[in-house]
Amino acid sequence: MKVSVIGATGYGGLELIRLLHQHPFVDIASLHSFSTQSATLADFYPHLKNIVSSPLEQINPAEIINTSETVFLATPSGISKDIAAPYVEAGLNVIDLSGDFRLKNGQVYEKWYGKSAASADYLAKAVYGLAEFQQDKTATFIANPGCYATATLLGLAPLVKNQLIDPTSIIVDGKSGISGAGKAPTSSTHFTETNENMSLYKMNSHQHIPEIMQQLTSWDKNIPAIQFSTSLIPVTRGIFTTIYVKPKEPMTKKALHTLYETTYENSPFVRIQTEDTYPTIKQVKASNYCDIGLAYNEKTNTITIVSVIDNLVKGAAGQAIQNMNFIANFAESDGLNFIPVYP
Amino acid sequence: MKVSVIGATGYGGLELIRLLHQHPFVDIASLHSFSTQSATLADFYPHLKNIVSSPLEQINPAEIINTSETVFLATPSGISKDIAAPYVEAGLNVIDLSGDFRLKNGQVYEKWYGKSAASADYLAKAVYGLAEFQQDKTATFIANPGCYATATLLGLAPLVKNQLIDPTSIIVDGKSGISGAGKAPTSSTHFTETNENMSLYKMNSHQHIPEIMQQLTSWDKNIPAIQFSTSLIPVTRGIFTTIYVKPKEPMTKKALHTLYETTYENSPFVRIQTEDTYPTIKQVKASNYCDIGLAYNEKTNTITIVSVIDNLVKGAAGQAIQNMNFIANFAESDGLNFIPVYP
Amino acid sequence: MKVSVIGATGYGGLELIRLLHQHPFVDIASLHSFSTQSATLADFYPHLKNIVSSPLEQINPAEIINTSETVFLATPSGISKDIAAPYVEAGLNVIDLSGDFRLKNGQVYEKWYGKSAASADYLAKAVYGLAEFQQDKTATFIANPGCYATATLLGLAPLVKNQLIDPTSIIVDGKSGISGAGKAPTSSTHFTETNENMSLYKMNSHQHIPEIMQQLTSWDKNIPAIQFSTSLIPVTRGIFTTIYVKPKEPMTKKALHTLYETTYENSPFVRIQTEDTYPTIKQVKASNYCDIGLAYNEKTNTITIVSVIDNLVKGAAGQAIQNMNFIANFAESDGLNFIPVYP
Amino acid sequence: MKVSVIGATGYGGLELIRLLHQHPFVDIASLHSFSTQSATLADFYPHLKNIVSSPLEQINPAEIINTSETVFLATPSGISKDIAAPYVEAGLNVIDLSGDFRLKNGQVYEKWYGKSAASADYLAKAVYGLAEFQQDKTATFIANPGCYATATLLGLAPLVKNQLIDPTSIIVDGKSGISGAGKAPTSSTHFTETNENMSLYKMNSHQHIPEIMQQLTSWDKNIPAIQFSTSLIPVTRGIFTTIYVKPKEPMTKKALHTLYETTYENSPFVRIQTEDTYPTIKQVKASNYCDIGLAYNEKTNTITIVSVIDNLVKGAAGQAIQNMNFIANFAESDGLNFIPVYP
Repeated sequence: MKVSVIGATGYGGLELIRLLHQHPFVDIASLHSFSTQSATLADFYPHLKNIVSSPLEQINPAEIINTSETVFLATPSGISKDIAAPYVEAGLNVIDLSGDFRLKNGQVYEKWYGKSAASADYLAKAVYGLAEFQQDKTATFIANPGCYATATLLGLAPLVKNQLIDPTSIIVDGKSGISGAGKAPTSSTHFTETNENMSLYKMNSHQHIPEIMQQLTSWDKNIPAIQFSTSLIPVTRGIFTTIYVKPKEPMTKKALHTLYETTYENSPFVRIQTEDTYPTIKQVKASNYCDIGLAYNEKTNTITIVSVIDNLVKGAAGQAIQNMNFIANFAESDGLNFIPVYP
Repeated sequence: MKVSVIGATGYGGLELIRLLHQHPFVDIASLHSFSTQSATLADFYPHLKNIVSSPLEQINPAEIINTSETVFLATPSGISKDIAAPYVEAGLNVIDLSGDFRLKNGQVYEKWYGKSAASADYLAKAVYGLAEFQQDKTATFIANPGCYATATLLGLAPLVKNQLIDPTSIIVDGKSGISGAGKAPTSSTHFTETNENMSLYKMNSHQHIPEIMQQLTSWDKNIPAIQFSTSLIPVTRGIFTTIYVKPKEPMTKKALHTLYETTYENSPFVRIQTEDTYPTIKQVKASNYCDIGLAYNEKTNTITIVSVIDNLVKGAAGQAIQNMNFIANFAESDGLNFIPVYP
Repeated sequence: MKVSVIGATGYGGLELIRLLHQHPFVDIASLHSFSTQSATLADFYPHLKNIVSSPLEQINPAEIINTSETVFLATPSGISKDIAAPYVEAGLNVIDLSGDFRLKNGQVYEKWYGKSAASADYLAKAVYGLAEFQQDKTATFIANPGCYATATLLGLAPLVKNQLIDPTSIIVDGKSGISGAGKAPTSSTHFTETNENMSLYKMNSHQHIPEIMQQLTSWDKNIPAIQFSTSLIPVTRGIFTTIYVKPKEPMTKKALHTLYETTYENSPFVRIQTEDTYPTIKQVKASNYCDIGLAYNEKTNTITIVSVIDNLVKGAAGQAIQNMNFIANFAESDGLNFIPVYP
Repeated sequence: MKVSVIGATGYGGLELIRLLHQHPFVDIASLHSFSTQSATLADFYPHLKNIVSSPLEQINPAEIINTSETVFLATPSGISKDIAAPYVEAGLNVIDLSGDFRLKNGQVYEKWYGKSAASADYLAKAVYGLAEFQQDKTATFIANPGCYATATLLGLAPLVKNQLIDPTSIIVDGKSGISGAGKAPTSSTHFTETNENMSLYKMNSHQHIPEIMQQLTSWDKNIPAIQFSTSLIPVTRGIFTTIYVKPKEPMTKKALHTLYETTYENSPFVRIQTEDTYPTIKQVKASNYCDIGLAYNEKTNTITIVSVIDNLVKGAAGQAIQNMNFIANFAESDGLNFIPVYP
């Protein structure tokens, strides 16, 4: 399969290139960037030297349509919505890694993103690509989920889909590595400000909240809201979510594990930890796995769910390739079944 | 004031020495260690070279009683209870940094610590030294609080003391730097296992849970239990607690801030952040401050409290010196009013 | 090709498994450990869950000889020499990652390693596997080079082989990530002791010195000694060597680059940086590349060579697979031509 | 003593404030910034909340002259030269932390800094304040040394002043923490680019080279040049220099140590490590110490000197206060004799 990547110089684009390079059935047809052209990507990213020789090209839709079957938009929110149309209209597979097509309601998008929304028919057409639960295998226009949303939704799905929890009880304490803030240098990504530090940001206002709510309420319409926090921890890659919910009825630890094991028995990238074991960021580093640990506290009738991913892989580029594999009828794990980088 | 430190070679003991060295009214009379003697501390800790020349001495209670007015026990839980008696009986000021005298109920200690408890009369005699709320200024035998307990209790006190929250709603998501695990090398303190990582430990079983419960229920006896999690983050020093509670009645952000400002108006080491601002670990590094940020989410009727400390200072040695200042009738901030180390 | 890994639970063994898993022409026949048996590796290393299901088996040479064509010894120095014989005698390909067979002179080994040496005929038989310069393609018993030695020798080879430098002028300032110290927790691998720190170790006594000297003197017998330092930096993976040498004759920057480009024109894993550009550890992370940057200072007549590798890949498991590829007549880069993990 | 700080919002200025705050004989009269005014410093730096309440004021020389005896210029190179005059002319003590007055030769400044130099008479008037070797105790206009220069010069002084080394043999391999690059976010201070990384910068072109040469040649005019490298390591604070020199005559380890011990016997902030012991960054963190370790390799006739400092203290603000102490006739260590922050 011939693919193009638009937005090749951001962290999401670079990770796509890393993963696509080792996919057995993919050829990278072209790489594109708004910010830079007329150079090879390796001129800016020395890790690619002698491996990826493709030039960074201008974005010429006609040419891309001519040479590629699949286009990945690794462009920021606010950009994807303006450039997606030609590829969608031409019938290419389009997988967008931004937030532009995730929310079905344009007004909600405008409120949380502070930007004008994509057109209503495009919002209707795009399919939210939470890979483990995406049903419409004929969909070719995919809104790839956000990193926090992926970790949170995979952590909550078994309980919420079966409507086993008090719908008002969901509290998500999410922590993210610094790469989640992107490549642009800011004071909140400065080493001396972030190393040996931890900080909370976007209190009650993170744009993944409506995305999570949209999916959760599709599973249990009684959920009125979630409490959702986001913090920065001094790691490069990784999302670590600690989720607290109250079951409607007390649950045994065993029942809880069985529920999760069963839900994900056909999902190669979700690994339920054995009882009394909790995942760490490092065990999924640079891989497409979402590892989930579970606890139940009888005293407080609280289930704790720990769900970890690599934000650049399962939270972005890896899940995008999972979605591409569905479209292309490849095996779900083709190109993604490698071992996490440890230590 | 002449002071001795027993357990001088652990992180708590070393931090006591660092802070006592710059206290204007204190002389270190002697330093003691179980593991090492007949050498100076600087032989093992080169940062002390040419500054602290005291030898590490054997623990001779008669001699210590003779030369010191105050003894700090920076010994691990399970040791302090066996060595405290002579100093208490001799009427010295005794400040214990371990968990041995914090819990009034010996059975609770034995359950959570897995060790035999101190005698009932010593448990009764020891005063829990949460400095901002310690009332008994004549107390000379102090159980210095745990690090998580300090951050959590200072974060919850204004709401709980005024019985403003649903007593079943408390969820504490605590994160600790690696120095909290002590100086002994283990696989969970190994750099390659902890850097670029985050992990959860002691799920629902951390020994600070009963300590927090004992204090909270003294403020509001209706609190049946708390949900309390502890994670390791790749920083050397610091506790970052994110606390979620539901107020009995909706609160304005302004009322919330006023409540906290008022509660701590005479507490030099608790700094309430301005509205919409949340503290980071780095802003209290190497200092005795506890910085607290506050948010209220109308949609979920949830208050989020962020409370951060340096675990070795406000969570151990600094608070111990605050307690010593009370006993000695020094100003509360004597020796502690320095600026945090930033960046 | 069927392969076995002995010493599967150390960092070297784990990295071999990670790389062999994605090698297109290899099957892992069995995994072995001294310390642990009767369990799967994934029980101890959750990153392998659902990917590597092999049990950890006892070391039964007859069985290994029966099922495998190649044996990797990822055992520590002092162990490999005691266990290698059956596989060598049986004619298996044996690739040893320890220092036991690198030094031709057993007395030198005993001096630097403080252990008794392997037998003289085994020392004679083993071929030093510095992949880019290993000539004997029929060799099946390989002593895989050390991490510092690899970075240093690849950095020096073009100048030394052509005898272009003052043989008394070599100074190597080497820095290593903490994984080079292995998996065992010690005070020098403790997070709180290593993070935000840098320290020098084994001053003038690192065991890679004789290994480097042996190879350098095979290229230029006039080299009497090298000055070689080793420091620990707070990174998990990586060797960063800064090498200073004085050319016999002043060299232009261009001539220097041409020399290196020419030397390595057929070496897929050595990447000479463009002029005035110097490699970073991150650009080779988790990959088999050795990236080299070059400078010449006219004022001091000094060439500076910066040579970086991932110590666990090019400095251990990756180079071992390069050597296996030679033996098996695979392409040199088979299973190794993936993109480094960045960022 | 009343002091003012101009450039209070940079890392150097903030560190000055931290140290001046705990100096027993100093009052901060005013704080000034170019970038920000009409706010308190604590509005931007929450670590200062409730401790430093001074406003950030405009730079009004007449007022500063009226209220202060000493002015610290913590302004960047290129700024100090333009603003120093009024304070110097008014006879205030002026201590400049930038590079503007360090080089006696304006042309050399212009070549290495790429900016126009201060006037010749000001360059002549300013005294280079390497505290341990500054002789002119009547000097009131001080050019405070650079961080690399301080670590390098203190490491080399005993050998160079006694002309014991081959003047062509000096090689300095310097490593710096990220705070050395200042507070402005750039791609080379971005956490994801610097953590788990190491990189070399300003190859053979660092602006501290002429500063070091100027001082070294004042001690031994035969030194023609030095080889000097600078690398970034992922730590917040710290300079770690590894220096290689060849003695004219072979030296015993004992003679080497005696030389250094003797040279620094009256220098409270230089601590010579015991034989076979080498300093780490952490043992001087947040302190004014320069710790030095020494080795001699007979095989290569090379002395290795390891010299470490905290770049923001001994490499900037701390040494500035040492210089202020000289001027004011305070004890050299007043306000600086605290214990480094460890761990």
